[in-house]
Amino acid sequence: MVFKKISLIGTSPESFDAAADDAIDRAQETLENVHWIEVEELGVELATADDREYQAEVTVAFELED
Amino acid sequence: MVFKKISLIGTSPESFDAAADDAIDRAQETLENVHWIEVEELGVELATADDREYQAEVTVAFELED
Amino acid sequence: MVFKKISLIGTSPESFDAAADDAIDRAQETLENVHWIEVEELGVELATADDREYQAEVTVAFELED
Amino acid sequence: MVFKKISLIGTSPESFDAAADDAIDRAQETLENVHWIEVEELGVELATADDREYQAEVTVAFELED
Amino acid sequence: MVFKKISLIGTSPESFDAAADDAIDRAQETLENVHWIEVEELGVELATADDREYQAEVTVAFELED
Amino acid sequence: MVFKKISLIGTSPESFDAAADDAIDRAQETLENVHWIEVEELGVELATADDREYQAEVTVAFELED
Amino acid sequence: MVFKKISLIGTSPESFDAAADDAIDRAQETLENVHWIEVEELGVELATADDREYQAEVTVAFELED
Amino acid sequence: MVFKKISLIGTSPESFDAAADDAIDRAQETLENVHWIEVEELGVELATADDREYQAEVTVAFELED
Amino acid sequence: MVFKKISLIGTSPESFDAAADDAIDRAQETLENVHWIEVEELGVELATADDREYQAEVTVAFELED
Amino acid sequence: MVFKKISLIGTSPESFDAAADDAIDRAQETLENVHWIEVEELGVELATADDREYQAEVTVAFELED
Amino acid sequence: MVFKKISLIGTSPESFDAAADDAIDRAQETLENVHWIEVEELGVELATADDREYQAEVTVAFELED
Amino acid sequence: MVFKKISLIGTSPESFDAAADDAIDRAQETLENVHWIEVEELGVELATADDREYQAEVTVAFELED
Repeated sequence: MVFKKISLIGTSPESFDAAADDAIDRAQETLENVHWIEVEELGVELATADDREYQAEVTVAFELED
Repeated sequence: MVFKKISLIGTSPESFDAAADDAIDRAQETLENVHWIEVEELGVELATADDREYQAEVTVAFELED
Repeated sequence: MVFKKISLIGTSPESFDAAADDAIDRAQETLENVHWIEVEELGVELATADDREYQAEVTVAFELED
Repeated sequence: MVFKKISLIGTSPESFDAAADDAIDRAQETLENVHWIEVEELGVELATADDREYQAEVTVAFELED
Repeated sequence: MVFKKISLIGTSPESFDAAADDAIDRAQETLENVHWIEVEELGVELATADDREYQAEVTVAFELED
Repeated sequence: MVFKKISLIGTSPESFDAAADDAIDRAQETLENVHWIEVEELGVELATADDREYQAEVTVAFELED
Repeated sequence: MVFKKISLIGTSPESFDAAADDAIDRAQETLENVHWIEVEELGVELATADDREYQAEVTVAFELED
Repeated sequence: MVFKKISLIGTSPESFDAAADDAIDRAQETLENVHWIEVEELGVELATADDREYQAEVTVAFELED
Repeated sequence: MVFKKISLIGTSPESFDAAADDAIDRAQETLENVHWIEVEELGVELATADDREYQAEVTVAFELED
Repeated sequence: MVFKKISLIGTSPESFDAAADDAIDRAQETLENVHWIEVEELGVELATADDREYQAEVTVAFELED
Repeated sequence: MVFKKISLIGTSPESFDAAADDAIDRAQETLENVHWIEVEELGVELATADDREYQAEVTVAFELED
Repeated sequence: MVFKKISLIGTSPESFDAAADDAIDRAQETLENVHWIEVEELGVELATADDREYQAEVTVAFELED
C-alpha cells in the first residue's frame, strides 16, 4: 500500500473551514481513496479579491491503486 | 508556580473550532486551572470516519497545585 | 513597490475566524493598501478571560506609499 | 535540466527500511530517471492495521524529460 | 472522541527499528487504544552505554475513554 | 530501558536560570530518575504578574521503571 | 477557485536567478495560470557537473480549471 | 544599545538581488543606523505583474536612539 | 482587544538576563500595556564590542488602545 | 568540559542503520571520547550509485581534551 | 573575507550564562578572530553529573585567514 | 564512503551569487572532493562594511578519504 500526497489551496469568501472544505471537495472529485488532509497554512487575500478571500493550503493524502 | 503542558487531539464532524472546543472540554473536565491552549495542527480524517472528521491537536497548559 | 509586514493578535469570544477578522478589521482601520494576511498561530486564553477567548496571531502585509 | 519532486508514503509490516523501499519501488515502476529520495517522516500505524504497519513518507526527485 | 499524545524514548542495542518497537511495546503494556506513533528523533548513545545504544524518541497517540 | 518526556513551565521573579531550576525542582520532587532537561522556550510575563515573571518551558526526561 | 502547488528544481551554470527562471520557464511551458513561485532551497552541485551547477528548488502555484 | 527589527518585502522586475536592494534602499531612506538585514523568503509573483516580479522578504535591524 | 507584536534586541555586557531586561526596559519606556515578551534568539557579539556583548532578541506583545 | 559537534554522512548499500553505523565507525576511528550522535537526515541516492545507496547524515558529539 | 562556523557545547555547575562563557573561552583559546556566537540549545544534565550541569550549545563564527 | 559537512560564510560587495561563490572558492582551495553546497542563510551587513556586504552562509559537503 502506497499513498501519495499533493498540495492544494482552497478558497472561500466565508471562513477557513469552508476554504479547507473547498480543497477537500476538489480532491474528492478527481481522486479516489482520499484518506486524510493536513492544514499547512491559513491566510486571507485582500488585494485581488472583492472582499476577504479565506485560503487554506492543505496536503491531501490518497491511496494509490496497485 | 509551575505549569504542565499536555497534548490532546479533539474531533468534530462540524468544524475546526468545534474540534478545538472538544479538546478544551475534555481538559476542563479532568484538570483544574487550565490557563491557555495552543493549536499545534489541524487536519481532517476521511478514511476511517463516516464523514469528514475535523481534528485539532492542541497543547493544554494548566497550573500544578503546590 | 515595497511591502511592510506587521504582527497583530486579534481576539474573539466566538471563533478563530472571528479572531482573525478582528485583527484584519484593526489593520484596515489604520493602514491603507493591506494586501494579505497570514495566520501564524491560533490559541485560546482561559485564565484571564471570563470565558474562552479565541486568539489569532496574524502577519499583515501592506504596500508602502512611495 | 529540471527535476520534479513528489511525496509518497510507503508501508511495510517489517521495518522502516522496507517502508522506504516500498515507496522507492513504486516510484521506479512509474517514473524514469529517479535520482534520489529524502525521508520526511517515519511513523507506525496501529489502529487500522492488523499488526504494526511501518510507514515512511519520502520525497522522490526525478529528472523531467526535455 | 479525544486522543492524547505522550512522548517516549525507546532504546535497543540492535537497531533504530528495535528502539521504536521498544517504545511501542511499553506504550501498549500500559495504555489501551494506541492508534499510531510518530518518530520525532533518532540518536545513538555511546558514552554511558557498554556498546552502541540506539534510541528512538516517539510520540504515541491513544484514544481516551469517555 | 524506556524514557518518558513531559513538559513543564517554571517561573521566577528573578531570572531565567531560576525559572528553569523551579521546573527541575518540581520534576525531582514528584519523579524518580530524572536524567536531563531541554529548554524549549524562554519568556517574561508582565500583565498578570506584580513584576516581571521569568518563565522557562522545559522538557523533562526521566527513566520509567520496568 | 482552487490552486495546486508542485515542486520543481531548476538548474543553471550561471546563477541562482537563472536556476529559478529555469524552473519557472518549465512550469509555464506545461501549466496554465501559474500565479506565483516560492523559493524553498538554493544549492550548488559540484560533483556530477562539469562546472558549478546552481540549483533552485521552487514551489509553483497554479490555478486549477473548474 | 537596543535594536529594532522590522519586516519589508522589496520587489524588482530583474533579480532577487535587486529585490533585496529595493527593500534596503527603502529602509535606509526612512531609518537611521540600519545595521544588517536577513533574507527571510524569496519568491516570484506572476499573476498580478506584467512580467516576473522578483520579491525578497527581509528583516531589517536598526539601532534605536537613546 | 487587539495586540501588536514588535521585535527588539537588548544588549548587556553582563548576562543574557540583563540583555532581555534591557529590551523590556526600552519597550516599557515607549509603549503602554506591554503584556509579555518571548525570547527569540540569544547571542554574543565579540568583534565590534570591547568585551563580550550579550544580546537577547525578544518579541514584545502589547495591547493596542481602542 | 567542552564538547564539539561535527556533521558526517555515512553510506551503505544495505540499510539506514548501516549508514548511521558507517558514520559512527568513521568518527570513532579518528576521534576520542565520542559521546553521542543525532540523526539529522535520512535519504537514498539512486542516480550516481550502482544500486540504492542509503545515507544517514548525523551530528557527532565528542568531548574536547583540556 | 570568509567566516567558518563550528558548534561547541559549554558546561557549568552554575548557570546557562557560565556554560555559554565556557564555550566562548574555549573558542578564544584555540581560534583567532572569533566574531560572534549564537546560542542553539540550552539544557541541564542530571543523570551523569554530581549535581545540575548547565549546558549551552553554541555556534561560533570566526574569520578565516587569507 | 563518508562525507563531512562544514559551514562557511562567503562575502561579496556585489551580489548573493558572488558571496556563495566566495565560500565555494575557499572550500575548493583547501578541501578535495567537494561534492555540493547548500545555502543556509542570506544576509547583508551594513554597519561594519564600507558599503553593502552581501553574505551567504553555506554548508559544504566533501568526501573524506579512506
